[in-house]
Amino acid sequence: MNGAESLLKTLTDAGVEVCFANPGTSEMQFVAAIDGCDDMRPVLALFEGVATGAADGYGRMAEKPAATLLHLGPGLANGMANLHNARRAGTPVVNVIGDHATYHLQYDAPLTSDVVGHAKPVSDWVQVSESAKQLGHAGAAAVAASLENGGQIASLIVPADHAWDPADQAAEPQSPPQAATVPSGAIEQAARALKSGEPVAILLGGSALKEPALTAAGRIAAATGARLLCETFAARLQRGAGRVTPERIPYFGEMAAEFLQDFRHIIIVGTQAPVSFFAYPRKPSWLSPPGCETPVLAEPGTDTVAALEALADYIDAPIEPSCVQQEMIPEIPAGKLTPGGIGACVAALMPEQAIVSDESATAGLAIMPVTAGAAPHDWLMLTGGAIGQGLPVAIGAAVACPERKVLALQADGSAMYTLQSLWTIARENLDVVTVIINNGSYAILNIELERVGVQNPGPKALSMLDLTKPSLNWLALAEGMGVSATRATTVEAFHEQLTDALAGTGPRLIEAVV
Amino acid sequence: MNGAESLLKTLTDAGVEVCFANPGTSEMQFVAAIDGCDDMRPVLALFEGVATGAADGYGRMAEKPAATLLHLGPGLANGMANLHNARRAGTPVVNVIGDHATYHLQYDAPLTSDVVGHAKPVSDWVQVSESAKQLGHAGAAAVAASLENGGQIASLIVPADHAWDPADQAAEPQSPPQAATVPSGAIEQAARALKSGEPVAILLGGSALKEPALTAAGRIAAATGARLLCETFAARLQRGAGRVTPERIPYFGEMAAEFLQDFRHIIIVGTQAPVSFFAYPRKPSWLSPPGCETPVLAEPGTDTVAALEALADYIDAPIEPSCVQQEMIPEIPAGKLTPGGIGACVAALMPEQAIVSDESATAGLAIMPVTAGAAPHDWLMLTGGAIGQGLPVAIGAAVACPERKVLALQADGSAMYTLQSLWTIARENLDVVTVIINNGSYAILNIELERVGVQNPGPKALSMLDLTKPSLNWLALAEGMGVSATRATTVEAFHEQLTDALAGTGPRLIEAVV
Repeated sequence: MNGAESLLKTLTDAGVEVCFANPGTSEMQFVAAIDGCDDMRPVLALFEGVATGAADGYGRMAEKPAATLLHLGPGLANGMANLHNARRAGTPVVNVIGDHATYHLQYDAPLTSDVVGHAKPVSDWVQVSESAKQLGHAGAAAVAASLENGGQIASLIVPADHAWDPADQAAEPQSPPQAATVPSGAIEQAARALKSGEPVAILLGGSALKEPALTAAGRIAAATGARLLCETFAARLQRGAGRVTPERIPYFGEMAAEFLQDFRHIIIVGTQAPVSFFAYPRKPSWLSPPGCETPVLAEPGTDTVAALEALADYIDAPIEPSCVQQEMIPEIPAGKLTPGGIGACVAALMPEQAIVSDESATAGLAIMPVTAGAAPHDWLMLTGGAIGQGLPVAIGAAVACPERKVLALQADGSAMYTLQSLWTIARENLDVVTVIINNGSYAILNIELERVGVQNPGPKALSMLDLTKPSLNWLALAEGMGVSATRATTVEAFHEQLTDALAGTGPRLIEAVV
Repeated sequence: MNGAESLLKTLTDAGVEVCFANPGTSEMQFVAAIDGCDDMRPVLALFEGVATGAADGYGRMAEKPAATLLHLGPGLANGMANLHNARRAGTPVVNVIGDHATYHLQYDAPLTSDVVGHAKPVSDWVQVSESAKQLGHAGAAAVAASLENGGQIASLIVPADHAWDPADQAAEPQSPPQAATVPSGAIEQAARALKSGEPVAILLGGSALKEPALTAAGRIAAATGARLLCETFAARLQRGAGRVTPERIPYFGEMAAEFLQDFRHIIIVGTQAPVSFFAYPRKPSWLSPPGCETPVLAEPGTDTVAALEALADYIDAPIEPSCVQQEMIPEIPAGKLTPGGIGACVAALMPEQAIVSDESATAGLAIMPVTAGAAPHDWLMLTGGAIGQGLPVAIGAAVACPERKVLALQADGSAMYTLQSLWTIARENLDVVTVIINNGSYAILNIELERVGVQNPGPKALSMLDLTKPSLNWLALAEGMGVSATRATTVEAFHEQLTDALAGTGPRLIEAVV
């Protein structure tokens, strides 16, 4: 058994079943080890950002880590943006990053890089293996680290000689960490806010957006009239008819500040107090109104279900929650396709237990509200603002949940960041329906240009936000990577194509021209 | 004038003419500033790796920096792999990286990242601007830093408030740094080696691969019989008929060690002593034979032309160089297309002063030798081993040299890393002929798998190196991004299509199926 085999056995013994990979020479021993291992599924990506984003989507749905296999500093760098997103999502990920053999580093060969320096900004845990024999232990520690604080990025750097040198055996899995419990006084503090007689909101994020926590929050709302809020960008929001449904805080800071202006207490559960996504001249960064208190019931990584249930019980809340979403399918409009039309069709056609990977950007402003009353589903969002996340997350979700339909709602500009995803979707025959919302623009930036104070931008500035010269042809791009595709420019055509795509299984792409 | 305008004016005053950009909200002030500036050409890329690689190609040809415009840590991360390559190439690049406003960082908004931490592993110089008023000075320092040591990566991080706050004026350009001169004794030391009577090579790299340095090296060879060697991966090699042509050191370590085994002195000029690209079990990392001396005539970043000319004069070398390449066009084979057939057609058809961006990987082993005697041209290579460099470098070269034909010889697997390049080539109507060499595989890794000691790999391992399920359709991918494309499977078809593509101007793509 060599070091790579020891690491692989350690990972699979610890429950890691999937490796999203783009290996190079320094990872060939690991590739060979996977060859002889029935318990690890390798999923090849043609770009590392696809691999890391897929690990994010997998971890969000499987609630355990996938591994990635990355090639030295530059390979890791290509995956860093989606690791940033995964970290913001609180997703467990174990990165296995090959490096030059220890004795080779001194020669400063062309690919030599500061791999630790690359890893640190996007990792919660970084370790370089000490030897082939220690590699298994490092792997077990990496898996355990990935599960701490509700989900973290663990990066294990493996010099090539540690992969090929002999090792004794795999390491025992470490005990999974326990979720932190609610600190003493937090429940009483939240209860005081709820009983203050002043306007109160409960802001839910992270793990508090899954059904058990939502139900507990709904009980508290039923007892107190507190409003339930949802952080703007959720890693995984369980929503749809019959579920307790919090109100999403708007993206644009000034709208969010207005939305929050009447609250005197915002109880924070599984997330942070609301802040503006970006700073803008003469606009606030901190979005809670002056004088509003923001007591923390549960930090990210604590057991939010236990915290919310304890609070509900503490205040003798009823068993039946309020804020339960009724089934509600919007009327489907006719004519030219719009984001609202896409949303109406999605709401009407989405099967129960669908998983939506949403990187629809500006179009999402119209899509998300109208799908609230659709069949129960999971909604995965762009947590860290680094675009190019949606298609990789769809891959990971589909690998984690092969029995569920995955729907990727994807803006064109961000789709281009990781369009190599389509090839992996085709290769693995994943049950993913991709909707590319083609508006020919970085539309959000046209809005942002004005919001940062730029008046009357000229053609040179606007051209830097434009994707129409030439227009991207997503039918051709999909064909180029082996995914069947159609194009819709009317709601009627989109409805028909989405019906057809959802009726089958396997990869389909609809270019939705809006 | 705000900070962004001050920075932009500073950059253009210092001679920076092109900005390869993928901006986001935090860079909107810079976008607005470009709007009102006639001296800066913005080139939009749909992925940051395209922008940084294009800046590399531009800098190699223009011998001055382009700017990039990148969006916080994740935007920079997406461009890091090609910055690694640019740094290894010794290319001057000025990165302008937006960050959150200084006062916004405390709120840990979703896109908050350690931008300095991202920048350090791929930068020789990193600075965060201190204020809007200091931003111009920081920009002038960045340009100067990019030109030090023969070409460096300078990363200037600009908090958004420094871009929008008022500034007084642009900063004066700093004086360009002088190239380091040859240290005393280096010429005498090299001359002693040349006169030793033992086998001597002169290993040329970096700036020593351009014509004036090559000619001086050829004079030394004429006087002494020393063999002239070329580093394996050159940033810019001027070659072709009539030029002094060094022998390229083979890529594979054991072949390189055999190639070098008889030398007793290898005089190093503008590069490092030869080392293996990767380490392999029981194979050497250091490639010079035991006992071989490796005196350094000129470190990277020193004036290699002056060093070689001084050495030539010191040994009274004749004016006429030896090792001059004769015009030599190989016979063009018939039938099924092969890398050798591609090479023969390229050698026969490439116009004078063409620029070849070569990321042809395994195919290049057959292409490069047969093009040695073609019309004089520049050959740009993958300097840092981080794949996905070739198409972006072609963009940059075409922007720098609009009067010259650019030919991108691009392997399929690495093309997929930055395929968004095709859109920028189309948008800017660049005179680039792209040849995608489609072998349906990470072919190099099939070789490397064996070389790291893996015997009899099974289907699971081999599938991780395979690009045929599904096959990539480059005609469709090119069409999707607005580039006219054809496909060739025979030498005859390739010859005809390349003839046609080179006869016109503007973007063309040939999928060469081998």
